[in-house]
Amino acid sequence: MNVLVRGKLEHHRTVTFDARQNSVLLIEQRLLPHEFQIVAMRDFRETSRAIRDMVVRGAGAIGATAAYGLAQGARAFKGRSLAQFSRHMKTVYETLKAARPTAVDPVNAMNQVLAAMAPGETVEERQALAMGAAEEFAAEDVRHCEAIGRHGARLIRNGMRILTHCNAGWLAFVDVGSVTAPMYAAQAAGKRFHVFCDETRPRCQGATLTAWELAQQKISHQIIADNAAGHLMQRGEIDMVIVGSDRTLGRTGEVANKIGTYTKAVLAKRHNIPFYVAIPLSTIDWNLRSGSDIPIEDRDESEVLGAWGVVSNHLKSQISNLKSAKRAYVRVANPTSRARNPGFDVTPADLITGIITPAGIFKPRDLWKNRQKLR
Amino acid sequence: MNVLVRGKLEHHRTVTFDARQNSVLLIEQRLLPHEFQIVAMRDFRETSRAIRDMVVRGAGAIGATAAYGLAQGARAFKGRSLAQFSRHMKTVYETLKAARPTAVDPVNAMNQVLAAMAPGETVEERQALAMGAAEEFAAEDVRHCEAIGRHGARLIRNGMRILTHCNAGWLAFVDVGSVTAPMYAAQAAGKRFHVFCDETRPRCQGATLTAWELAQQKISHQIIADNAAGHLMQRGEIDMVIVGSDRTLGRTGEVANKIGTYTKAVLAKRHNIPFYVAIPLSTIDWNLRSGSDIPIEDRDESEVLGAWGVVSNHLKSQISNLKSAKRAYVRVANPTSRARNPGFDVTPADLITGIITPAGIFKPRDLWKNRQKLR
Repeated sequence: MNVLVRGKLEHHRTVTFDARQNSVLLIEQRLLPHEFQIVAMRDFRETSRAIRDMVVRGAGAIGATAAYGLAQGARAFKGRSLAQFSRHMKTVYETLKAARPTAVDPVNAMNQVLAAMAPGETVEERQALAMGAAEEFAAEDVRHCEAIGRHGARLIRNGMRILTHCNAGWLAFVDVGSVTAPMYAAQAAGKRFHVFCDETRPRCQGATLTAWELAQQKISHQIIADNAAGHLMQRGEIDMVIVGSDRTLGRTGEVANKIGTYTKAVLAKRHNIPFYVAIPLSTIDWNLRSGSDIPIEDRDESEVLGAWGVVSNHLKSQISNLKSAKRAYVRVANPTSRARNPGFDVTPADLITGIITPAGIFKPRDLWKNRQKLR
Repeated sequence: MNVLVRGKLEHHRTVTFDARQNSVLLIEQRLLPHEFQIVAMRDFRETSRAIRDMVVRGAGAIGATAAYGLAQGARAFKGRSLAQFSRHMKTVYETLKAARPTAVDPVNAMNQVLAAMAPGETVEERQALAMGAAEEFAAEDVRHCEAIGRHGARLIRNGMRILTHCNAGWLAFVDVGSVTAPMYAAQAAGKRFHVFCDETRPRCQGATLTAWELAQQKISHQIIADNAAGHLMQRGEIDMVIVGSDRTLGRTGEVANKIGTYTKAVLAKRHNIPFYVAIPLSTIDWNLRSGSDIPIEDRDESEVLGAWGVVSNHLKSQISNLKSAKRAYVRVANPTSRARNPGFDVTPADLITGIITPAGIFKPRDLWKNRQKLR
């Protein structure tokens, strides 16, 4: 999508591949929203570290990064022995997998690339097949997000005020995003609307990443405290909610997503405001039978006890080594108190108006009977 | 209440009067929770500035500060002319009133002191009556909070997990507090319970002030992101909610309070969790006929776009002038985005289980028929 770089709009993807340099190019997301920078990962170990260290995050984006990382590793192999090549590829695969052990997307992406490589009869052929499969993985991610955009844009009417939570924008995919896809498609169709971004404590991905995306794209938006959405709904200032999902249960229509999503769904129900979830197919879990079986990770309490930001000018003037101090953590809370920090919550199907997928919009309880289309 | 000072528990009130020095003594609340300090306001102009600059905040606390400030101003008068004294008192009154023009408590408190002074036949008599009335105002604030505690403590059962929002603790009153009063009374009665403090973005009074109070008092508690309460309720981990109120409509039972209160009430209703509001009588508005008539102040957007905290040690080491940099503002949000920051919301009566007052616990819709007891 568009990024304003030195006053000019440029088109960028979250992850791309530079074949000549055999490098994976990533937007350095840890610097956002305060700085925009593309960084080159020059071998598969660097690519793996970039996944581990959150240079890149988001299901689609880390899937594509792993796919490219696998091709990158394949292409770095010098030699003609298929046996040695296979051993090398096992190392590449395990290294990339270990970067984010609980994530399912890198593994799925790499399995797709490995399957595509298998028919190659020489190392060179397999390297070429790997490269093609990685590019295809990334291209499919974009096509799927564009399809979410086409389906979802129909829901957005001129003048609407949309609430969103956290970030499932193009930065979390290769491009376009899931939650943001309907917004970008509606904008392209000439519709005008306003987005309220929940700041999304404790990590504030709404205030940082979603707001940054919408600002680059010149979409009208305001950041609100997570506490404010109920009040705005009560005063009739929100017409629709769109959120993403980390895991959607195909059997029940329950949606696990960033902490606070459930609260917004309960509020939307009380005010009869449509509540949509936009998802790529990869987040659908066809096995689990109940949302209460989804493990909810308790994250580090420092996230709740403080905040990351850029220090004010007043403070900057007192810091000799400005560069490393640019982004700083401040302790907000009482120093002798502890915190509890559940990272996700589960929204039941009865609170969800529809699930926007690349294959169309479904009632949450209809996912299962449409599972052929959705796999 | 108790404050841990250099390892020892000391008893403190938010505001007291030093008659010998003719000074109003205040806890410097802008340093909390990171530093505890008592500051002396040596004349009524200093006292007025302390109210204006938020050294002291909270309805009961600024009421008592204004009452003491008026007595302080009266006692500073040298001379015997009642006419000159009256002109002087008008200046004192207007100066203190101007410190927080929209607040009703300082005005009510000062009117009470002025009425008590009227029978005095000499300047000296009136000065003594003013002092007595100010002390009585503060003492009544404490008695009322203690009464809220007695009524509310009956609701707290052993092992309960209580959610609270923002700070209506003893720091907002002369002592004891409204929301915290039932907790302190239950603790004194030997009950054990756990409190979840909403951090209460954007100003984080829950993470800073309420958590600080509970920590001093050794009450088991954890800070949570405002987003987390719904999840905890869903998992059966919250048994009761107690919040405060900035304005309670006597005719309808609607409650205006810190932004986010309404959201917690909606969640509590869905989960059949009792939702109580603890209030002093001074917050009851007997005139307004609808919560939608309550003006909701849109506060400065910088509150949402960033956070105040204490810089980490890493940063401290780079700052030469540590003292002034101790508490710093960091910009969290995307620098090119704006925010919307409504400061309060209104919770309708149907979401409120009961209103805990110094005169007992009432159903919100029963305030009006009990108005004789509650004025």
